[in-house]
Amino acid sequence: MTPSPLARPFPDLPAIAGATARTARAGYKDWDRCDLTFVALDPGTTVAGVLTQSRCPSPEVDWCRAALTLGHARALVVNAGNSNAFTGARGRDAVEAIAARTAQAIGCRPSDVFIASTGVIGVPLPVDKAEAGLDLAFRSPPCAWREMTDAIGTTDTFPKGAVTRAVVDGRTVTLVGVIKGSGMIAPDMATMLGFIFTDAAAGPEFLQRALSRANARSFSCITVDGDTSTSDAVLAFATGQAGNAALADDESPGADAFHAALDDLCRRLALLVVRDGEGATKLIEVRVTGAESDRSAHRIAQSVANSPLVKTAIAGEDANWGRVVMAVGKAGEPADRDLLSIRFGDTQVARAGMRVEAYDEAPVATHLRGHQIEIGVDLGLGDGAAIMWTCDLTHGYISINADYRS
Amino acid sequence: MTPSPLARPFPDLPAIAGATARTARAGYKDWDRCDLTFVALDPGTTVAGVLTQSRCPSPEVDWCRAALTLGHARALVVNAGNSNAFTGARGRDAVEAIAARTAQAIGCRPSDVFIASTGVIGVPLPVDKAEAGLDLAFRSPPCAWREMTDAIGTTDTFPKGAVTRAVVDGRTVTLVGVIKGSGMIAPDMATMLGFIFTDAAAGPEFLQRALSRANARSFSCITVDGDTSTSDAVLAFATGQAGNAALADDESPGADAFHAALDDLCRRLALLVVRDGEGATKLIEVRVTGAESDRSAHRIAQSVANSPLVKTAIAGEDANWGRVVMAVGKAGEPADRDLLSIRFGDTQVARAGMRVEAYDEAPVATHLRGHQIEIGVDLGLGDGAAIMWTCDLTHGYISINADYRS
Repeated sequence: MTPSPLARPFPDLPAIAGATARTARAGYKDWDRCDLTFVALDPGTTVAGVLTQSRCPSPEVDWCRAALTLGHARALVVNAGNSNAFTGARGRDAVEAIAARTAQAIGCRPSDVFIASTGVIGVPLPVDKAEAGLDLAFRSPPCAWREMTDAIGTTDTFPKGAVTRAVVDGRTVTLVGVIKGSGMIAPDMATMLGFIFTDAAAGPEFLQRALSRANARSFSCITVDGDTSTSDAVLAFATGQAGNAALADDESPGADAFHAALDDLCRRLALLVVRDGEGATKLIEVRVTGAESDRSAHRIAQSVANSPLVKTAIAGEDANWGRVVMAVGKAGEPADRDLLSIRFGDTQVARAGMRVEAYDEAPVATHLRGHQIEIGVDLGLGDGAAIMWTCDLTHGYISINADYRS
Repeated sequence: MTPSPLARPFPDLPAIAGATARTARAGYKDWDRCDLTFVALDPGTTVAGVLTQSRCPSPEVDWCRAALTLGHARALVVNAGNSNAFTGARGRDAVEAIAARTAQAIGCRPSDVFIASTGVIGVPLPVDKAEAGLDLAFRSPPCAWREMTDAIGTTDTFPKGAVTRAVVDGRTVTLVGVIKGSGMIAPDMATMLGFIFTDAAAGPEFLQRALSRANARSFSCITVDGDTSTSDAVLAFATGQAGNAALADDESPGADAFHAALDDLCRRLALLVVRDGEGATKLIEVRVTGAESDRSAHRIAQSVANSPLVKTAIAGEDANWGRVVMAVGKAGEPADRDLLSIRFGDTQVARAGMRVEAYDEAPVATHLRGHQIEIGVDLGLGDGAAIMWTCDLTHGYISINADYRS
């Protein structure tokens, strides 16, 4: 598939001590590529996760939700090409079989095995292919993160990863993340499959709070089409091999630095997903200020970022700010038409409920011809603020989704 | 513009005694057509209305909301090509000028004049053009409803109208409706400009309750793109010239018949709007049953009907029921994955959380090649039911909306 015009080069991702990835061909689809990933995690690895809020989650999501309560991980298995969602008892059986076989191979409890699957909904994951694939993976040589991104992707047009570092308790800790996703992306909880590995030592409660906090500022602030997958998950694993005293709470040495690094990593990963939004040609940042509360600002930003009419206008490089007014108006949040201000890029278009006098569209037109578009909305009511990232809605989205077969 | 493939022929609409339409060229846009409509209503005409729930409504909507509290109407003025929304004090001045000039011309109070405008947001309606257009309209010969539909349309690809009759108090009363709208269509209140005229006599309170009830079963159950206009309004005018004893409440003779006729008229008008959905090639009926409540069913139906992934799947004639599961799951309403059943047309696809054994896609494929698609979702939880109508999401929608200039 042609890479998105918004693609970014894959960065140089370092190894993380205690986390070893391997990939194999399970053959979940009729394709010539690796589609099963097995990551072995050394004893002592802690885990945190954020999972889809869908009321119809996959059995993998149910499994991870239960396993996360224990806080420890020894393995991650990722299947691509079949999400195993909405497959009843057979789907649950497949998940349990994968956990059992992996636990047996590396000598751990099944609840130490985390599982994520992505792809078609409604077709039970074939257990025989999963088990054969796992056996291949157990014997495969370790691979680089770059290979893992290929093995977890589906409709992605480019591999997505990021790295950050922090000094924690005198040790430099490294965080790497790989992520897949380009459609069925909406906020309100993890909106794709993302996996973060760090050699930092961190207690599971701390890691969970840190991931939830980072998620609220990253994965929960992106949308491609407002559709939410049944399988979305972001999991973070901390192997503890950097040698720092384990992060236990925000008073622990280096906690702030770790938060900053994780926030940064998650935000970069989230933006990569938007950059690979199906059919995307422009990355759109919606900044809402002056709302009654941050929550209200978030909802208004969401309404603008999900509006098909706003997104098609940006695709057409049309400074159609009236559609932004429409999207603010339909959000159902407190808004006063006569206090509302709107800008595109640095150019104020409307202020206090009216187009500004002497509005010059030229700089706006120039801004809209670029690949990174900023829409600013000020409600003039209070201090509530939020940012949401999305992409434009183009013929490419229709082509991908009216053809992509269930 | 090429008519929608789902277009319906315009019906033969009779005159309504006491309501006389005239059209004129105000020239709100650079086009060669009538774009101002003036309907004179005889003294004694009552009025009801349902208006957009947008927090950023046009001054026309504000005006109508205030005037509706009085319950009487002598005139309707409709402008096409400029919605006058988000235009500050100048927009309000334009509305007041139109009301004043019309009131003076026909000898009524300004508050007896109802006004609706549709088109570009953010450009104040030019008062000089409105006044000159009105003066032309006052002197024009009366026109048929068919001509009015042309004068109120904007991106519509075919004229939309309907007629029903009822026997009320021994008299046959007639209801005609004309409507415009094809994009920026979402439920939760009138989602287009619609005008209903009847010769029945009906008190304004009764008429308002009847219209609100009909709206809940029609205009509030359609969506094209989930976007809600700043100008949406449906107004109903009852001239009272059929000679029936005025309908005052549900105990009045003929109240049931009137309700049935109005419900039917509104539903037919609403479906015409979906049939003209921007880029639509298929009319989709989403029927949700077994939800915990009707309200919950409505929200789930809305989530399915607004899902870009469901709508593109239908455009591609793809029986991608997994996307229906996804849309149910993201609605945030009570749902149990393992009780969920889904059908396309008459064919059950999934039952109790799994694809049915021996699922045969052939009849589904045949159904999806047609122009009227039915998606059935049963939650298996309770008695809540709802229907929502929408259309597919196609390249046509992108073409129309990435080009249409603000």
